[in-house]
Order: sequence, then structure tokens, then C-alpha cells
Amino acid sequence: MSLELEPERQTTPDAASVSPDRASREQGDIEPAVPDPDRPPPAGSWRHRHLLDVDALSWADISLVLRTTDAMHEVLRRPIAKVPALRGTNVTILFYEASTRTRVSFEVAAKNLSADVVNIAAASSSVSKGESLVDTIRTIEALGARMLVMRHATSGAPYLAAEHFSGHVLNGGDGWHAHPTQALLDLYTMREALGGRAGDSGPGGRPADRFLAGRKVVILGDILHSRVARSNLWTLTAAGADLWVCGPTTLLRGFDGWARRGVGGSSDRRFTVTSDVDAALRDADVVMALRIQRERMEGGLLPSLREYAARFGLTRERLASARPDAIVMHPGPMNEGVEIAPDVASGSHSVITDQVTNGVAVRMALLYLLAGSAGGSSGPAGSTASSSHD
Amino acid sequence: MSLELEPERQTTPDAASVSPDRASREQGDIEPAVPDPDRPPPAGSWRHRHLLDVDALSWADISLVLRTTDAMHEVLRRPIAKVPALRGTNVTILFYEASTRTRVSFEVAAKNLSADVVNIAAASSSVSKGESLVDTIRTIEALGARMLVMRHATSGAPYLAAEHFSGHVLNGGDGWHAHPTQALLDLYTMREALGGRAGDSGPGGRPADRFLAGRKVVILGDILHSRVARSNLWTLTAAGADLWVCGPTTLLRGFDGWARRGVGGSSDRRFTVTSDVDAALRDADVVMALRIQRERMEGGLLPSLREYAARFGLTRERLASARPDAIVMHPGPMNEGVEIAPDVASGSHSVITDQVTNGVAVRMALLYLLAGSAGGSSGPAGSTASSSHD
Amino acid sequence: MSLELEPERQTTPDAASVSPDRASREQGDIEPAVPDPDRPPPAGSWRHRHLLDVDALSWADISLVLRTTDAMHEVLRRPIAKVPALRGTNVTILFYEASTRTRVSFEVAAKNLSADVVNIAAASSSVSKGESLVDTIRTIEALGARMLVMRHATSGAPYLAAEHFSGHVLNGGDGWHAHPTQALLDLYTMREALGGRAGDSGPGGRPADRFLAGRKVVILGDILHSRVARSNLWTLTAAGADLWVCGPTTLLRGFDGWARRGVGGSSDRRFTVTSDVDAALRDADVVMALRIQRERMEGGLLPSLREYAARFGLTRERLASARPDAIVMHPGPMNEGVEIAPDVASGSHSVITDQVTNGVAVRMALLYLLAGSAGGSSGPAGSTASSSHD
Repeated sequence: MSLELEPERQTTPDAASVSPDRASREQGDIEPAVPDPDRPPPAGSWRHRHLLDVDALSWADISLVLRTTDAMHEVLRRPIAKVPALRGTNVTILFYEASTRTRVSFEVAAKNLSADVVNIAAASSSVSKGESLVDTIRTIEALGARMLVMRHATSGAPYLAAEHFSGHVLNGGDGWHAHPTQALLDLYTMREALGGRAGDSGPGGRPADRFLAGRKVVILGDILHSRVARSNLWTLTAAGADLWVCGPTTLLRGFDGWARRGVGGSSDRRFTVTSDVDAALRDADVVMALRIQRERMEGGLLPSLREYAARFGLTRERLASARPDAIVMHPGPMNEGVEIAPDVASGSHSVITDQVTNGVAVRMALLYLLAGSAGGSSGPAGSTASSSHD
Repeated sequence: MSLELEPERQTTPDAASVSPDRASREQGDIEPAVPDPDRPPPAGSWRHRHLLDVDALSWADISLVLRTTDAMHEVLRRPIAKVPALRGTNVTILFYEASTRTRVSFEVAAKNLSADVVNIAAASSSVSKGESLVDTIRTIEALGARMLVMRHATSGAPYLAAEHFSGHVLNGGDGWHAHPTQALLDLYTMREALGGRAGDSGPGGRPADRFLAGRKVVILGDILHSRVARSNLWTLTAAGADLWVCGPTTLLRGFDGWARRGVGGSSDRRFTVTSDVDAALRDADVVMALRIQRERMEGGLLPSLREYAARFGLTRERLASARPDAIVMHPGPMNEGVEIAPDVASGSHSVITDQVTNGVAVRMALLYLLAGSAGGSSGPAGSTASSSHD
Repeated sequence: MSLELEPERQTTPDAASVSPDRASREQGDIEPAVPDPDRPPPAGSWRHRHLLDVDALSWADISLVLRTTDAMHEVLRRPIAKVPALRGTNVTILFYEASTRTRVSFEVAAKNLSADVVNIAAASSSVSKGESLVDTIRTIEALGARMLVMRHATSGAPYLAAEHFSGHVLNGGDGWHAHPTQALLDLYTMREALGGRAGDSGPGGRPADRFLAGRKVVILGDILHSRVARSNLWTLTAAGADLWVCGPTTLLRGFDGWARRGVGGSSDRRFTVTSDVDAALRDADVVMALRIQRERMEGGLLPSLREYAARFGLTRERLASARPDAIVMHPGPMNEGVEIAPDVASGSHSVITDQVTNGVAVRMALLYLLAGSAGGSSGPAGSTASSSHD
């Protein structure tokens, strides 16, 4: 499966649904109530069976995730950070790529909800015997999985899985394509740090305005190969941010056209593409540095780590041109001294460890919401359409 | 340990005990009651301390497994598929070979019974430091294991383990020798699909007839290297099937003699060996395709995967000569397009995913029955005889 | 980080605190009460936030560990060997080196206390992506870990971790430096086997005498590279043993000076260093053989395994010169036929499997005591000093 630089074409026939305006119209100005994490998830508060990418989420959906995450944060602060909501539910975590934080984050989130967790790493799986992905998915379902968290090196693999799995699929990262839980935890972290209350209702029960309106958010680094950047483009423009993506021109290829057309083809969701790091950082509210993968050097896309660090590394000097209360983010794992200086990574602007904790809370919220959605184990086996068709 | 083509000689001094006639005589026409999965396993309903192979099981034993599996299936259909029967019991899964479905199947089965599961993969174990198997087994017991599920590349390894483990050993596959839980889940799947009710009592409380009597069952593929085939030979002939094994002559070596003598040396348990796939499939009720392992090519036992597929692959055309309601089985993982065509694997005759789900229920039943058997942690340390001497 | 042959210089500014005399003075002749394992750990009965090495433990501390282990042993003998003390507590086991027994021992111990266990093996962690240890530790804490069990090839790595982790760190072995839980389970095993009751109060509530006083304990093998030996030096001399370390001179380098000065620079804690295996074993009460690692041959430190076995292997003949009721120990995994003969390893003197079971009980006790100590998740983030400064 080849990478699509502009995944919205392929994956969101109904891409416009992410438009906040349309979404709020569709929701009839009624915000869904936040479910109670101490009880089993109520049916129907969430409409999507799978979480494959953020492109299928309306602003009302995103708001519900953020507000449910607030409730899960309250659980995390308890002496025993555990609720029985998913007791006896089999959550299988199938990772075809190595990962610490995302894998463990999902595992902890599921255990905090009292689910039974099964870990399957590609190295020890039948994949090494040549079994097809579809066969693996069917087998995992037959073994009892009701929720499947999946990471795969191939863009689109979770979509294929969702077509053959009668429960709920959560994309834990697929190729260069999408990393929806990362984008949602990033959004939650910005809301927390910048004081926005995305889920708050305004007068008359209407959703509050998009809380990143007027905020400058910069994603800095290897945009081209980053599923984190792609998923963040959707949520950040949906939240109204003045979004900049910045990196070496070789790592921005193809993004110019997307930026001009706007995310989802929506003219009010354009963003800025630049290789001028000083212009990007000036007066920024949020700077998110991305991991530079060493293997990119070999392909000739980058000169050297040293030169990258010199030209694009997020140093204290560069950060000085951002707003005084700017926050620094990184999806991890970091190459300290390359894309981010150690003193910035652990400095006063950094919210990087908050991102990790928020990741557990966001994933608790998503597992919880999906478990209460239509479909799932009791739904008709034929209704396997991905969430982008909801 | 070398492979024994006819394992009954070595492993079943009392091989005739599997004869249904004798077994039913021994049981005095009394069927043991099916235990209640919501309670701890009652002592004494099951006589075997270990499950090393099916050759030691009487027909009454097999019937009890099947009927207990029915009860576990009922548990699996509950909203929370969990019973407290083995709460606090340490079930250690020690796999020296990679596996997805068998390993996860045991893990899910044990967790459904509320056991505490410890996974040990050979790659990360002291095996890589040269520790002996016996030492590893003693260590695992001292660490608290009460039930040990084990897969090993060497035929007979679980028998060695059972001699040094005071709890219960379940063989999850040893070399070419045996895969008893696979044979029992296969039998359960045939009973379910063909309408037989193996566990039903007939008039006067007598066990019903062997439910595969008059049914033609074909095992197709690499018989020689298959522990699945070997274990199935025992259970299928015990259940009265008209059993055929079919494959290239190089992969049937040594089975002719066994077929003539009958399984366990019993003349009413003979089976048919052939390389004529058309003769084998004609009017078959059950066709079980086995995985072809690519490494067999190197040994010169097979010409090529392409030629194997052409001559022995289970295609729709070949399947047409079986009975119209024939079922298709495969132990997985499949090489689709080699031993089985993709449209057959996922076609209307296929019960392959049912096998996977039945595997969880069968393993729940076996863990449950063994936990209630004599021996185990409270038994005398000296009574370590394998189940074949029961 | 380079290996320090005499770790007390670097790691124990307050090394003398391990002196039993001083410790008992400090405790004011009051023994802390053993906590009840069926309840959550009471705050304050244990003063150390981390367990990095045994050098920071007073004799009163060691006694409390041993007596709490007695209580955990009682739990292990129950039909359901489980108490709710750490329910909902996230215990993360981060192992950068392969291990069966230590990793599983901690896992079983934590599960017996009803903790939620997360396993992270280096091979599948972000370590392979170049993330720094400090970053990994911060991430694991942000993911919810309250207790961190860690094994690392670098001496001192757990000390670094403890500086950046607001919960509790337990050292599961670091380089050649320390293996404190092994030393404590070894001490517990000697107390159990030799009849000493280290934790018993004497007249007037005073701690009983050091229970290894007058006992000859021999550690035999590769002393130089052994963290087991280093940690045992502390606890065994603290308990009053007549301690001998014995091995090829190349594997004793640097220990002479330490032996003369005494452990912690304390003249009443001297020990004997020798390559004369006959002198060492004569009238010994305890013989502990250490694992010989094959890779030492390559460095020229050992001639060959065969020659090592001939000169230093613990055989029945050699053991005959020890006391008739001597016990044989080994931390495992064993190279049977090299450092220990198979008939000795499983002979009547061996308490090797007792060590394994005691390891689970000791680790339950330590997890339990640390969870009740000051610091931890609710403590101030700044109080990250390692336990050696307590």
C-alpha cells in the first residue's frame, strides 16, 4: 500500500464532516453528555465503531473525547486509579512495530478500566509464519478480542482490519498515515496548557468556540514521514489554530498543495508550510518538535544529524522568539541534542511528560466511548464499514 | 529425542484404554456429571493429572471434555465471559516455539477462569543461558506455577516436564508428536458442525454411540511432520470415523504399517493412507488441510510450493467431490494459495474460525478439569507418573 | 559508568549505618512491628523509599524484611495466595537484560499483592530507538508506574533512575554492582535452613544476635563479575558470618584490599579471600556456587569450562569436607557440570529451589514495605535522593 500524501482524498469520502460549523449544525446545538467512568459505557453516546483516524470526527465528537478525558483524569487522581467499566472485556494489543509508550499507554488505559489485556508482538506472532493480516484479524476475533489496538508499518492496515473485525479497532499508528490517539492527546494537552475549555458549553447549550482560534501552533521536523503530523493537521485546523509546519524542504514535499487547498478541501482550514524556522517560531504559542529518524540520512533526505540540529533543532535560543508562555511538545521518543535540546526538553516550557499522562487518560476515554458505540460484538457481522462512512 | 512414527508403542503402555467399548465398560455405564464452571473444579470428576496426549484418554474422558466445553461455551456467550473458578491460580505458559493462536488461546482461557497468567517465551528465558529443561521446570514450580502449559520443539519434552512438576502439565504441542488440545477442539468442532452430541446420554444413561461413525474424515497434507495429525488419529478413530490421511508419498512414510494395525493396535481403529487426493475427497464429510512448512522444500521432501498447490491444494474444484454439506478445517496459520485456496478458506464450508473459538472453550474445560484432578500442588511430590499410566 | 570494585566508596556515604551495633542503637531497642499483609501497607514502618542496594539497610531494616517475608510465606501457603494490599498499584518491570527467574519472581510477587503489572523488555522498548534512560524513566512514571523494578547492564543505572522517578525503584540487578533482592532471599534461605530466627526479639524487646555468627559461609566462583557476591558481602557480614570468597585468582582481583579493610570499612566485618577450594569448603555451613559465564573464557580470565569444573566445580567429593548438615545454594540459572555437579544441585543438601520460592516471598515483602514508605507518588517531587542518603 503506497503512502498517500493527502489521505483525505482516499479515507474521507465525507471529509467535510469534520468542519466544526457543519458538525455543530448536525448536532442541533446539543452536546452529548459526558458518560460516567464508574459505570459501563452507555450505548449511543458515541457514533463511531472504530477509531481509525481523526478525519472522520466532527467537532462534537472531538469535544466529547476531551470532556470524557477530563472524567478519566479524575479517575487517575484517585488512590486506586481503576474503574470496573470494561470488566471482562478482551482488549488485544497487536503491534507490528516496536513501541514503549503507545503500547504501554493502551495497556495501562485498558487495565485502569478493568479490561483483560492480551499483548501480541509481531516478532512472536504467526506473522513470521506468513499468515495474512486478514487471517490474523479473524483469528484474534475468534480468540475473544472485542477491542483491537493495532500498530502497523503499512498505511491503511487498520482500515483493512476494521473490515474483518466485528468489534472495535483503534489505530495505534499506521505507516506515515495516521496516529489518531496521539493527535487527540496533543489537542487535550494544548487545551489543558492554554486554558481553553473545548468541551464547555456556551450560552444556550451551544458548543464553545474552537479554543485554538488565534493561537499559533508550529510542528517542526520531519513532516513528510510523520503520521503524528498528518493526524494533528486535522485536529489542529478543526480547533481553529494558525497552524505552521516547518522542516527541510525535502521533508515537506507535497504539503504545499495541501496547505493551499486546506485540510479536507476546506478553505478555512489552510495552513502554512515553511523551511524558515525563525519565521515559524516567532510568537508561537505551541511548538511541537518531531522525532528525526536516523534512517532518513541514508535516503539522502537529510545531510547529517549534526547539520539538522544546527539548522532545525529546537534550542533555547530559537525558543526565545516564541511567546513567553509558549509550550513545547514532543511525541517521543526524543533524540535529545538532535531535534530538541536537552534543556528545552526538560525545561519550564516543556509539557512532554504531561503528554504521556494525558495519553493514558485519552485512551481510557476512547476505549470507553467505543465500547458503548453501535456495532461491536453484538452488532451484525456485516456492518464492517469503517468509521469514515458513519 | 527422535521422532517415533508410531508413538503408541512408546507412550501408551495401556493404549487399549482409549477403546470406547472398553472405556464404557470400565465406566459402568455411568457418565460423570459435567462440573459447574461458576464454581471451583470439584475434586475427582477427572482422573488425569496432566494432559500430555490424547492417547491416554478413554471415551468417557473425551465425552466429559466435550460436555464441559459446552458449559464453557455458555460462559463465552455471557456479556462478561468470566468465572472465578481458578482465581489466584498461577498458570504459566512456557513456549519454546513462536505461536499466536495457541499461546493466546490458553492465555484467554486461563484469564476467563480468573487465573493469574505468566507468559515465558524461550527467547527471553534462561534457556538462552543454557539452563536445562528440568531446572527450568523446577524453577517455574518454585515461582508458584500450579498449571504449566508448554510448547517445545522436542517430542516428549512435556513428559519430561511432568516428571518434575508437582502441578498439572498441559502439552501445547511437542515436536512432531502430539497436540492434544488441537485434536480435542477439532473433535468438538466436528461434533458441533455435524450435529453429533457426543456427550448426550442415550437410553438408560449409557453414552451415545461414537458420533463420527459412518462419517468420512480426510486429513490432507504433510502428515509426516504433523503433531496435529498424530493426535487427531487417536480421537477420530476413537469417535468411529472412516479416517483417511492423504498427501505426497514422501510425507506419509511409515503410516502404512500403522494404518494396517490400527491405532493402538486395535483392529477396529484402522485408517486409510493414500496419495490419491480425488479418492480421498470423494464424499468426504470433513476435510482438514494441514499447513505446509516451507522448510520442507529444502529437505527435498517436496518439489515446490507451486507444485504442491497444484497437486494437493484444497481448491473449490476438488472440494466439489466431497459431500455438499462437508466442512473444511485447518489448524492455522494458513498458507492461503498453497495448501488451501483463499475462497475455500473463507467460503461457506469453512469452520476454521469456529475452530479458534472452540479452542478457547476446550482449553477452559481442560484447565478446569485438570485443576480438580488428583495430584496437583497438594498431591504427594512423588506421584509424578505421566497421565499415560493412569 | 565504570565498575567500582569497592562500591561502598561511591554508593554509601553513610556505609557504617549497616553496622548492626549502630543500627540497634539507632532503633532504640524497639523493633518495628511486622505489617499485616492483608491490609494496605501502613505508612512509616519502613524508612527507605527505594531498594537500590543492601548497603543502606540497617540490621533493624534487614530484620523487618525477614519477618515481613515470614508473613508473606504464610500468604503463599493459602489456597488462594493473594492479598489485596497493592490493588490498583502499577508495578512496571523494566528489564534491559534477559531473565526468567528474577523477572517472573517480581511479576508473581506483585500479582500476589493484586498489583497491576506492566512488563517492558529492552528489545521491544524505545531503548532501541536511542531514547535516553532518564527520558524512559520519566515516561514510565507519566504512564502511571508507582513502583519500578529495573535490571540494567550498567552498574549504577537504578541510582540514576531513582533520581528521576517519584515512586519507588527496586534494583533487580545492575551490572556487576548489586542484586539486593537476591542477597535478601539468600539471607532468608540461610536463616530458614540453619534455624536462626533473625527477626525474633530477644529478652527486653532487643533484636536477637546476628544469626550467622559462628557460621562459615563460602561463596565459590566468579566473584569479580558477580553482583550477587557483592550484595551478599554486605548482608552476610552484617549477619555475623565467617565469610569466605573463593575462586580463580583472576576472578578475585581487587577483593584482597576490601577483605582486609572490612565491608564498609568496618574492622569487625572482614572476610577471607582464597583460591584454595579445599580450605574454603572445610567445615562450611553454607556453600553458594556462582554461575560461570561462558563469555569469560574469551577474555582469557578462565582457561576452559572443563578446567574450571575440575578445579573449582562443586562436586560431591568436595562437599564431603563441609559440615554434614551444610546447605548448597546457587542463584541460578545453573551450568550443571561446570560450577556445580548435577547430583549436588539436586541432592539432599541443596536448597536451590527453596531460594526461588523465598525469592517470591522476599519480593512481596519488599514491594509491600516500600509501598508504605515515605515518598512515592504523593511525596514531593524534589525528594529524589537515593536510599543511601537516608
